[in-house]
Amino acid sequence: MPASLSTCPKPQLEELQSALRAQYQRHCEANHALDLTRGKPSTAQLDLSDALDGILAGNYRAEDGSDCRNYGGLHGLPELRQLGATLLGTSAEQTIAGGSSSLTLMYFTLLFAKLFGLAGAPPWQLHRQPKILCPVPGYDRHFAICERLGIEMITVAMRSDGPDMDAVEALLAEDDEIVGMWNVPKYSNPTGITYSDAVVRRIAALGPRAQPGFLVLWDNAYAVHDIAAKGDPLTAIAPLAQAAGTEVAQFASTSKITHAGAGVSFMAGSQALIESMVEQLGIAMIGPDKVNQLRHVALLKAGGLAELMAGHQALLAPRFAAVEEALSAHFSGSELLSWSRPNGGYFVSVDTLPGVASRVVALAAAAGVKLTPAGATFPYNRDPADRNIRLAPSFPSLEDVVSTMQVFCCCVQLASVEQQLANG
Amino acid sequence: MPASLSTCPKPQLEELQSALRAQYQRHCEANHALDLTRGKPSTAQLDLSDALDGILAGNYRAEDGSDCRNYGGLHGLPELRQLGATLLGTSAEQTIAGGSSSLTLMYFTLLFAKLFGLAGAPPWQLHRQPKILCPVPGYDRHFAICERLGIEMITVAMRSDGPDMDAVEALLAEDDEIVGMWNVPKYSNPTGITYSDAVVRRIAALGPRAQPGFLVLWDNAYAVHDIAAKGDPLTAIAPLAQAAGTEVAQFASTSKITHAGAGVSFMAGSQALIESMVEQLGIAMIGPDKVNQLRHVALLKAGGLAELMAGHQALLAPRFAAVEEALSAHFSGSELLSWSRPNGGYFVSVDTLPGVASRVVALAAAAGVKLTPAGATFPYNRDPADRNIRLAPSFPSLEDVVSTMQVFCCCVQLASVEQQLANG
Repeated sequence: MPASLSTCPKPQLEELQSALRAQYQRHCEANHALDLTRGKPSTAQLDLSDALDGILAGNYRAEDGSDCRNYGGLHGLPELRQLGATLLGTSAEQTIAGGSSSLTLMYFTLLFAKLFGLAGAPPWQLHRQPKILCPVPGYDRHFAICERLGIEMITVAMRSDGPDMDAVEALLAEDDEIVGMWNVPKYSNPTGITYSDAVVRRIAALGPRAQPGFLVLWDNAYAVHDIAAKGDPLTAIAPLAQAAGTEVAQFASTSKITHAGAGVSFMAGSQALIESMVEQLGIAMIGPDKVNQLRHVALLKAGGLAELMAGHQALLAPRFAAVEEALSAHFSGSELLSWSRPNGGYFVSVDTLPGVASRVVALAAAAGVKLTPAGATFPYNRDPADRNIRLAPSFPSLEDVVSTMQVFCCCVQLASVEQQLANG
Repeated sequence: MPASLSTCPKPQLEELQSALRAQYQRHCEANHALDLTRGKPSTAQLDLSDALDGILAGNYRAEDGSDCRNYGGLHGLPELRQLGATLLGTSAEQTIAGGSSSLTLMYFTLLFAKLFGLAGAPPWQLHRQPKILCPVPGYDRHFAICERLGIEMITVAMRSDGPDMDAVEALLAEDDEIVGMWNVPKYSNPTGITYSDAVVRRIAALGPRAQPGFLVLWDNAYAVHDIAAKGDPLTAIAPLAQAAGTEVAQFASTSKITHAGAGVSFMAGSQALIESMVEQLGIAMIGPDKVNQLRHVALLKAGGLAELMAGHQALLAPRFAAVEEALSAHFSGSELLSWSRPNGGYFVSVDTLPGVASRVVALAAAAGVKLTPAGATFPYNRDPADRNIRLAPSFPSLEDVVSTMQVFCCCVQLASVEQQLANG
């Protein structure tokens, strides 16, 4: 396979296309049923936390003696709030522990901020058209919340050290309807990069540049999720933001630490933000599931968290290595594909030649390999260059990851050659 | 104590007041710290479900083989949906199983109906001022959701067989901004009555009388919560509503079946209602905690539910008998107090003489007995007659219920005499 197609003579391209079609045909005939769509932990990863059910051994009391089985306690268990605070680099007083979904906390945060205002700020809906800054590529579920709640999304380029902060600051200076900014600051979904210290500092200082009610949304979903032996460091934003007067709503969960669908969630922010959040939540619930919170304290305390994360790392590292190996073997030095080499998180982000990603996903689907739909990593599902694809290798077996990557690489090559022939 | 104060000569009233003040003073000196405010299960009730933690014995698979630990399954576990459907008198296909809080499902229902519309209906916010019918006295948390979401509440009298349906039908005929109606149809909070078959049928037929988007909110929180040996029957509304074309959103939870703060919740309705609900929920979460759902299936299946409810009954019946005994002993044949004698649920509702309830609650508080604030059972916390108080005897020990009732009865007598003297 040549490193560049644009300089390749047409007969050679046609020959390549035949060879790739034959290869693709063989993949189709293999009756694959493979799925690389979502960042789901594998069965072996879930097994690591199976001690959860039964871990209480009949003792349902929290450290303060309160009965976790009964109603109440909107802030969550104090000992779990402490654990969340450590994860997020802030204090237990400024952290709440919730139910199984941090996505729900994010939904509520945007909902409350829009309808009622949080931390004493005016409601976002007072703006003619509230807007949120979205580094791209990014997380589809963040975008879906904005779209549903009628908050317009403005894209900002994601770089290797974080969002393009010059663009962010310029946008804030020129548009007074910008009410927030999404971030996955560590092992970003999908590019896997971690924000540099300089970027974190610039984001923490955005408050005074923005309108009242501006909220930095800090989804630290992969705070402790290293794949490489040496993980990326992330500067704690809370003290910087507090000093600068910027409201930052941090989120995290144990979805990729314990059982994905049955974990606990965290939110942290200024005292004013947290208390206004709790006041709003108090209308919608009596309290989170404190029994499950107590189970998580029992499992994660005293080194339990570090041990678990080492277990995940051992299972994930070979899968990510298989992706890297296949991509290197096929595309090293090639202009057909560039890709991320994350030190943690759940994704490898690839960029095809412009206009090729949708075709790759369609080809793979026809060969029995489900990929995240092209465009999903952009607001409104519109990748203007049609080139980004998110690969999620955690759930399939290592063997399946290897098979999938063979199909995927073939599809990228075939789609690229097809396009060159069509355009040439 | 005379049965009526209005015919009592002033000197006798003054003598009574002195005697009651002395008695009240003794209660104050006893340093009580009693709490009859919320319908919380007692520790002994919670103990009944302690098998939950560990009940899975390492088997996290649902009946269909799916892994409950991982993400997904917005509708909830099929086997739990069946259980909820039985509770609510409908089919599993028309029932979803959620997280630990049915209140959250109710909040989401009203939120989605207001902002987006459910089951294909126009959003409530298209009305100038959406309004909801609220039988009173009723449940404060229902009222709090309406108030927060800017839905005006119109009260309707609650009778011994359910809401005043003549009033409901007349209101619907004259006001086209009425978008819903709250109900706790069995062992109503707080009056303890159960809707008669005739009332259920009239409610199930309301749809065609109302505007598109009209939603009957059916919080069947006490579906299986009998205290008396023979519980009240409740007609299943789902088939009647379906036949009449009325949208009914049913809710239930295991909060007063298993562990109050760590149970599972249910919602049922027409296929269109449930699917539009799931579509909206899908923006705010990935799925409910299916591991806890699986635990609940294991505990409640095969007679487990009936056994549990018999256990609750055995613990609750003596507490309710103690309330009844004290009220009968002090107020039988008296005009000072009327009260409910529920066959199930969590509350006894009392009505003092008009204008006396707040004073009773204040007197009790000063004597170390916390009661639900007067007015809490009415929208906007306004009981126009200031006479209703909700007693919740489930949480305290039987001994404490007995002590509390002595203080309470004394406070009712003292406040009534005070008022007669002030008015006389």
